[in-house]
Amino acid sequence: MNQIHTIAVVGGTGPQGRGLAYRFALAGHPVILGSRDAGRAQEKADEINAKLEAETVSGATNADAVGAADIVLLAVPWDGHADLVSSLAGQLADKIVISCVNPLGFDADGPYGLVLEESAAQETQRLVPQARVVGAFHHVAALSLWKTQDALTHEDVLVCGDDDEAKSVVQDLAAAVTGKRGIDAGRLRLARQLEPLTAVLISMNKRYKTRSGVAITGVQEG
Amino acid sequence: MNQIHTIAVVGGTGPQGRGLAYRFALAGHPVILGSRDAGRAQEKADEINAKLEAETVSGATNADAVGAADIVLLAVPWDGHADLVSSLAGQLADKIVISCVNPLGFDADGPYGLVLEESAAQETQRLVPQARVVGAFHHVAALSLWKTQDALTHEDVLVCGDDDEAKSVVQDLAAAVTGKRGIDAGRLRLARQLEPLTAVLISMNKRYKTRSGVAITGVQEG
Repeated sequence: MNQIHTIAVVGGTGPQGRGLAYRFALAGHPVILGSRDAGRAQEKADEINAKLEAETVSGATNADAVGAADIVLLAVPWDGHADLVSSLAGQLADKIVISCVNPLGFDADGPYGLVLEESAAQETQRLVPQARVVGAFHHVAALSLWKTQDALTHEDVLVCGDDDEAKSVVQDLAAAVTGKRGIDAGRLRLARQLEPLTAVLISMNKRYKTRSGVAITGVQEG
Repeated sequence: MNQIHTIAVVGGTGPQGRGLAYRFALAGHPVILGSRDAGRAQEKADEINAKLEAETVSGATNADAVGAADIVLLAVPWDGHADLVSSLAGQLADKIVISCVNPLGFDADGPYGLVLEESAAQETQRLVPQARVVGAFHHVAALSLWKTQDALTHEDVLVCGDDDEAKSVVQDLAAAVTGKRGIDAGRLRLARQLEPLTAVLISMNKRYKTRSGVAITGVQEG
């Protein structure tokens, strides 16, 4: 049986944050949605609770949400990422911080990965050296998370990080989404590869009018 | 029924080139292995023919191999890539040129994607503007290609490119490896995302002692 965590979702009013908050809550984890505006966070929490038919989710300012949690999910836009992370540095220290942030660009030819020397996850680790940063949940489609409550059993959550214990906790947490433990995808720096892969998935979604996901063949976890 | 092509494999003496040459030949495509040394190419061709129990594969210099083919697979190391492509520019012009080149670095922490503004596939397109460059076959493990003759039906070949007709031909060709048409992964620039994903797969191979591969969920191709 997996451990129960109190999870703050920073950026919980966006579609990816909302979808993951819903799945975490469905799996029994108390969730605190964070937003700049506590009232807006509470509205989104009420929306998720209505769907859950439970009161598992609450809303708060980002700082209060992070302060009350033992695991933090950063589900914020890349635009403004460094400022937001810096503003929460005090509260993020020593916590398991999951980044599912995707630094993407969009133009007339569709989505693409920005040319960056470090990933969003690495940026968070640099800005908050005491945080236990893990990259995960980049590739699960927001609508697939929200539209049903069925586990996305055909997909895999790829988890990267340099803190093996934190990584293992997040691998367990992935079961809330896929029904199975996430895959250890290696060191945190490989977030540079995982994050922009989302551009390829969005491109396929447009081309095939679908919600695509990633599965890894040949790997068996827990 | 898919069309038969004469396929040159530049870098056909390396493991990825050898594995893909074997699969293309197995699917009925005449293959010409290219190498700097025609004698070495012929030795590798003999090795593949012995496994095929047929004479479908021949060896030649890179320039002769490319000159005689209608599709060229570049399966060469990133180191020296620009020089090699430039040296073959005349022969590559107007051909369908598949790049499966992965610009990776390796150090004590394992594999990682190099920080580059353009992918190997984009570099080839820039160096040979008349070539019809397609990125594909980055993620299929060399040993999985070589060790059995079973189609890798659980895996997907992701194909990117800006020439829709060339891309479609390569999607068909993917059936030689997976038994099904490859997935249209979007524009050529997304090779920047596809190529270094191989670092994640190699990392998982070490962690799980396996040969991992990629599958895309939610997409159905012909």
